[in-house]
Amino acid sequence: MSTRGKSLSLDTINPNVRNVEYAVRGGIPAMAAKYEKELEEGQKLPFDSIVFANIGNPQQMPNLAQPPLTFWRQVAALTEYPPLLDAPAESRDALFAPDAQQRARELLDAFGSVGAYTGSKGVPLVRKHVAEFLERRDGYPEDIENIYLTAGASSGILTLFQTFFRSGKDAVLIPIPQYPLYSAALSLYDLMPLHYELSPDKHWEPSMDIVREQIASAREQGRTPRAIVVINPGNPTGACMSEQEIQDVIKEAYREGLVIFADEVYQSNVYQNQCPFLSFRKVLLDFGKSDNETERNISKSVELVSLHSISKGFSGECGRRGGYFELTNVDAEVEGQVNKLVSVSLCPPAQGQIGVDLLVNPPKKGEPSYDLWEKETQDIHDTLERRSENMAKRFSELPGVHIEPAMGALYLFPQLHLSKRAWDEAEKQGKKIDELYCTELLNETGICVVPGSGFEAQPKRLEDGTSHSYFRTTMLAKATDEFIERYVKFHTAFMERYKD
Amino acid sequence: MSTRGKSLSLDTINPNVRNVEYAVRGGIPAMAAKYEKELEEGQKLPFDSIVFANIGNPQQMPNLAQPPLTFWRQVAALTEYPPLLDAPAESRDALFAPDAQQRARELLDAFGSVGAYTGSKGVPLVRKHVAEFLERRDGYPEDIENIYLTAGASSGILTLFQTFFRSGKDAVLIPIPQYPLYSAALSLYDLMPLHYELSPDKHWEPSMDIVREQIASAREQGRTPRAIVVINPGNPTGACMSEQEIQDVIKEAYREGLVIFADEVYQSNVYQNQCPFLSFRKVLLDFGKSDNETERNISKSVELVSLHSISKGFSGECGRRGGYFELTNVDAEVEGQVNKLVSVSLCPPAQGQIGVDLLVNPPKKGEPSYDLWEKETQDIHDTLERRSENMAKRFSELPGVHIEPAMGALYLFPQLHLSKRAWDEAEKQGKKIDELYCTELLNETGICVVPGSGFEAQPKRLEDGTSHSYFRTTMLAKATDEFIERYVKFHTAFMERYKD
Repeated sequence: MSTRGKSLSLDTINPNVRNVEYAVRGGIPAMAAKYEKELEEGQKLPFDSIVFANIGNPQQMPNLAQPPLTFWRQVAALTEYPPLLDAPAESRDALFAPDAQQRARELLDAFGSVGAYTGSKGVPLVRKHVAEFLERRDGYPEDIENIYLTAGASSGILTLFQTFFRSGKDAVLIPIPQYPLYSAALSLYDLMPLHYELSPDKHWEPSMDIVREQIASAREQGRTPRAIVVINPGNPTGACMSEQEIQDVIKEAYREGLVIFADEVYQSNVYQNQCPFLSFRKVLLDFGKSDNETERNISKSVELVSLHSISKGFSGECGRRGGYFELTNVDAEVEGQVNKLVSVSLCPPAQGQIGVDLLVNPPKKGEPSYDLWEKETQDIHDTLERRSENMAKRFSELPGVHIEPAMGALYLFPQLHLSKRAWDEAEKQGKKIDELYCTELLNETGICVVPGSGFEAQPKRLEDGTSHSYFRTTMLAKATDEFIERYVKFHTAFMERYKD
Repeated sequence: MSTRGKSLSLDTINPNVRNVEYAVRGGIPAMAAKYEKELEEGQKLPFDSIVFANIGNPQQMPNLAQPPLTFWRQVAALTEYPPLLDAPAESRDALFAPDAQQRARELLDAFGSVGAYTGSKGVPLVRKHVAEFLERRDGYPEDIENIYLTAGASSGILTLFQTFFRSGKDAVLIPIPQYPLYSAALSLYDLMPLHYELSPDKHWEPSMDIVREQIASAREQGRTPRAIVVINPGNPTGACMSEQEIQDVIKEAYREGLVIFADEVYQSNVYQNQCPFLSFRKVLLDFGKSDNETERNISKSVELVSLHSISKGFSGECGRRGGYFELTNVDAEVEGQVNKLVSVSLCPPAQGQIGVDLLVNPPKKGEPSYDLWEKETQDIHDTLERRSENMAKRFSELPGVHIEPAMGALYLFPQLHLSKRAWDEAEKQGKKIDELYCTELLNETGICVVPGSGFEAQPKRLEDGTSHSYFRTTMLAKATDEFIERYVKFHTAFMERYKD
């Protein structure tokens, strides 16, 4: 036998994986993690802590923006260790609310043990509760067979893109700016991304003209447009869609034979009243009441996937990995294929499924845990709203920063107007202008945010040599005032340093 | 707008998904689930309960074969609801062992909150404990950067097959019989499966001659053989590999440039002493001590992925979805691609990661929870061993059944010698002989097992018209005696019904 090199190298692995980009956990966050380790090891850096504002992780320490909801965690603990339910009543009742005990018993009845595999779609009782939630929310009943519990919305998207679309053939419309899961999934499965730009000066409204242009261009290139992704409330934009905007997307999907993916994981994160959250499912099914025959056809034929998650909203329970998707108007045989594919991964995590139950079926008025649950969720809502407003206000006062207040979601997406000199410096370093800005922000302050280009909002050079670009920051950083002070100091220095 | 049909149909989705087969959750288990529902609804069937012996799900009710380990569940509950750690000492200590409290505090320090995303590879403290476990087990240290926590072994396999191999180009050797995850993953990613048959009359030993034949045949067809999958202890065979067998596979992988996937999820499920579990990692690294230069090269160059899981062994914690894989000799840039890909799914479930910590770092002698943990794991071991022996003995007394006692894992894989008439009847019904047998078994007794063909152990017709085929049953059914009585009665009637 002779010597042998590696069988695996960048040249011999799946080229689609090589092509995947995922900025929210990309280069800048990796550098931030490195700095954090150095700080722990006692190294001296220009800052004494890292602020991870790159990812919507509401329970991340030390900036815990959203303490866990008590009712959730009581139920979770009881399902993990059922002997607690058999402890003497006085010690049990001192530790756990009676309705948490009751819920845990119901869930244990349905799960058997949280250590057992469930059905691949998830436990029927939880899916029944999801169906009831959808009926309360939208006014239309739902068949539990159309509901799949998942290990978070990302896992649902990956499963469905993989099942529905053909590598090398199909194309999918995604909003720009977008959440990078979508571009990553399209690269991974060798599907063509069709970018439809949202208008920053029209509250990030999608334009159906651009959608149609993109569809035509894909067809010219021999690709079949199959689906349109919509994120509402928007990530990273924070925009909420109006009923008219949703109707327009649905009609376009009807005309062009597109499946709609409605990413609605921020449906509870809404900070204004003019444009409340409205689900695609409701708007689609409402067409069924129309006098117009075409609209009634729309309601019965447009295929919709809507996704929700326990990672955002008031729960912010990212670590347990839970969510669901529901399928409207999807062919039964295709649904069978989805079912088969999810069975290969056996089942979603039990505590993620339990989380979905708690999400869609929270304590009701009059139940023992209601008042505390109400107070905790209200506090979280108020905190996020206040932080978001506070940050937007302070940012907007800075020269070279334009910012729209977030209508929803967990992010701010400020636009930067930076100098010619800054652009030249970025070019010299082989970076994009937003990467230069975010890298210097991290290096000087320890604040970790994601450049707009990570969301495909590419920097644009203007005629006078200056530029427009973006970055996304979460509104979760606990020490908001200190965070803002650090940021303001950096930005002021950056503008001074690269003054034209 | 005119009317519009469905955009999604079997003809327009990913053809690779259509090609996936997954028998352990396939047609017969689906029928069993239907019967279970009918029984719940009060329908009369020839049996009053379903025995799910199709899948290794040790905590499944009502046949709970493996009660959860107390230490595990105490730690899990405390991490879910940390205020329990602040309860008055007397009530806290009445409910939770002091070392469980201590472990929960350490884990909470490391995780922050179980509701927060962790790093995509999993929490560093848990990966450190995995590295220490591997060093204790194999005698060689491990870098935590080579360790990835996963949502179970299946999720690790899917991630790595997707990253390492090129659709339409590469080929992967899998044992026959195999666990259907492997054939499903290969179909899904359009990779060519190369079957190497294990010899039932030689304790399911792999033959390197067949491996070489398969490699040659793949190359002739223009495919590149890239990897070999080994399941040890075997699923569905229950066989344990000897050091010699493992060395042979490693040498072959060296010669042919194959990555080894060592699926070692049953490493604690071993029921005999002649052939104890030996890891591929140990055998590979042991080559480094050889006087032979080639063997030392082998040790430094053969790429190995080894996988473990919390779903099997003494924990049997399938529902929380946890496991890990470790990479030996894998190129750093390729590892970077794996890291990027897993980041798209954000992170493995927190309670799955905590499970891995408990798996690799159980209570030690002298610690408060040790005696109970020792007793519970010993009971589980004894129960499984006894059930396995008992079932094998009773099965082997039946006419037309040949069975090897399981050396390890959770399954028995009896060989059936069935009549010409039974084959003809199967053919008439458009079924394989093992499907006919397993379908009638379910219909008459409520016992759900998986036909051998689901593991690619295809029925063989013999010259006299009779046939050899297989089925897999778990050894987990609680009412073992009743299970066996039902089965014996069925088998006897089946043999009589189809007598030649």
